[in-house]
Amino acid sequence: MTNKLKYAIGIDLGGTYIKLGIVTDSGKIVKKVVVDTMAQKGPDVIIAQIKKGIKELLDGNKLKIHAIGVGCPGVISTKRGTVENPPNLPGWDRVNLVKILEKATGKKVYIENDANAAAIGEYMFGAGKKYNSFVMITLGTGVGGGIILKRKIYRGEFGAAGEIGHITIDYKGPKCNCGSYGCIETYIGNHYLVDRIKKELSGRKSIIKKLVHNDLTKLTPKTICEAAKAGDSFAQEVVKEMGVYLGAALASISNVLDIGIFIIGGGVSGFGKPLFDAIEENARARVLTPLRKRIKVIHAKLKNDAGIKGASALVFYK
Amino acid sequence: MTNKLKYAIGIDLGGTYIKLGIVTDSGKIVKKVVVDTMAQKGPDVIIAQIKKGIKELLDGNKLKIHAIGVGCPGVISTKRGTVENPPNLPGWDRVNLVKILEKATGKKVYIENDANAAAIGEYMFGAGKKYNSFVMITLGTGVGGGIILKRKIYRGEFGAAGEIGHITIDYKGPKCNCGSYGCIETYIGNHYLVDRIKKELSGRKSIIKKLVHNDLTKLTPKTICEAAKAGDSFAQEVVKEMGVYLGAALASISNVLDIGIFIIGGGVSGFGKPLFDAIEENARARVLTPLRKRIKVIHAKLKNDAGIKGASALVFYK
Repeated sequence: MTNKLKYAIGIDLGGTYIKLGIVTDSGKIVKKVVVDTMAQKGPDVIIAQIKKGIKELLDGNKLKIHAIGVGCPGVISTKRGTVENPPNLPGWDRVNLVKILEKATGKKVYIENDANAAAIGEYMFGAGKKYNSFVMITLGTGVGGGIILKRKIYRGEFGAAGEIGHITIDYKGPKCNCGSYGCIETYIGNHYLVDRIKKELSGRKSIIKKLVHNDLTKLTPKTICEAAKAGDSFAQEVVKEMGVYLGAALASISNVLDIGIFIIGGGVSGFGKPLFDAIEENARARVLTPLRKRIKVIHAKLKNDAGIKGASALVFYK
Repeated sequence: MTNKLKYAIGIDLGGTYIKLGIVTDSGKIVKKVVVDTMAQKGPDVIIAQIKKGIKELLDGNKLKIHAIGVGCPGVISTKRGTVENPPNLPGWDRVNLVKILEKATGKKVYIENDANAAAIGEYMFGAGKKYNSFVMITLGTGVGGGIILKRKIYRGEFGAAGEIGHITIDYKGPKCNCGSYGCIETYIGNHYLVDRIKKELSGRKSIIKKLVHNDLTKLTPKTICEAAKAGDSFAQEVVKEMGVYLGAALASISNVLDIGIFIIGGGVSGFGKPLFDAIEENARARVLTPLRKRIKVIHAKLKNDAGIKGASALVFYK
């Protein structure tokens, strides 16, 4: 039976690590390798690192590899196969990663923005399997988004679509790294969230300070999550507020895209049911009536190695 | 040469009037008829009015009519040909207007949401001719939207996409008719705009009061426009503010859809260059960097009878 399976290589090209895996067509990782990105050393070194990772991965391999999928930050031209100015990989102007890796491996290479790859991963292997259309949101340092519409990734005109993190929920809100104001990322992106909580904590009763042994530099979203789960009312308020923020953003997105399903993954999604309930409740209350009953906010299924699985899904999705 | 032209009937089904026209495939209206909608009398009477309008239109007609296009408020199922709960046409639950009109006329009938029809109209005959993708926004009592992506109308999953008016720009902003808060419609929809200006006027120096002979019930967006054009600094501030509001909404839309072109029509768009410049400037300042140079905010070209032309465009677009 095993030899009926198809295998792909999934490569998750991050700012710190390159994670590579051999993945089955049902999304199981057979072998995994992690190498340093060495992002500061520029594209040539990064490409050498990718090749090194592939070599390690294929060392002693007897499985027939179908093709290679790469998930990568930044704007990707899937047509040209280029990666353009990825934010965490300095020195890349426009690199034709597809050509380079196809030449190095002799395999077909697919490349996609990492947020889109995550959406395709959930669609092929995860919580998105049973839906024709959904928006995938990854909550982390940034807030990433990928849109699946009628079983296809929605890329927009030039491949930069789905930047959910930069939906404004308050046009005069906090300044965002992107240059705008009040983007949803400035409310729930890890750093912004932690910074805001630090400020709001002063004068409030909360076990958060105890959890970080009075050292607020140690505060992370996880601490807030722990505190909320322990019944801390301040932390629970924070979670509810996050639901208000995300609910407003999701309603705007639904009204424009006519998509009601949202799959949420990434670190902050670990806040669990109270957060998901709050998001769904707020989104449903705000969206136009015909969409209301279609709003569903659900957990992403791919957790560990979602990046590798999403990248490999690019192969099977084609 | 004339007999090489194709002709369509365009029907603009509004809450007060039904406007019908015979239109050439270059968007010229050859003949036009207007009948009362009699919306309060329910679907049967409205349908009888449509048929009456078509009869008048075809009276003495010698042109070969290709097919019929209908633009209609509400959620349209283009597959089923039904109109579902249009907000200004009480008593319609779900009416299969396509079937009814095809039976009555023997012609093929196309139906589309009026905002989408407006977008298709601009795409076929107007300012959208030279673009592959754009978002059409109609500023009026409501704020309507239609999305053209890669030369096709973007309908979303079930045909309700493009509700630009209900993008939130401030999650704790003014209450919207739709039930949400801070939708862009609550800032620039005609009634909301006029109501806000009435309040803000008190204690401000402005020629607006003189223009309405001190009777603020006579205040319309047109008055504000006139005052701004006459150099009234309060009215000019209002126009700039409208640019801030719309700019924020457009940037959110661009970031999600990856579309940079916006075509704006409808009454309020009569504010002209100062408004368009303000919208473009704000949208460009707020959108993600790779999209910045692609942001363009331009005037709709179809003005009078845009509804008829848009509806007829449904025929030629197919």
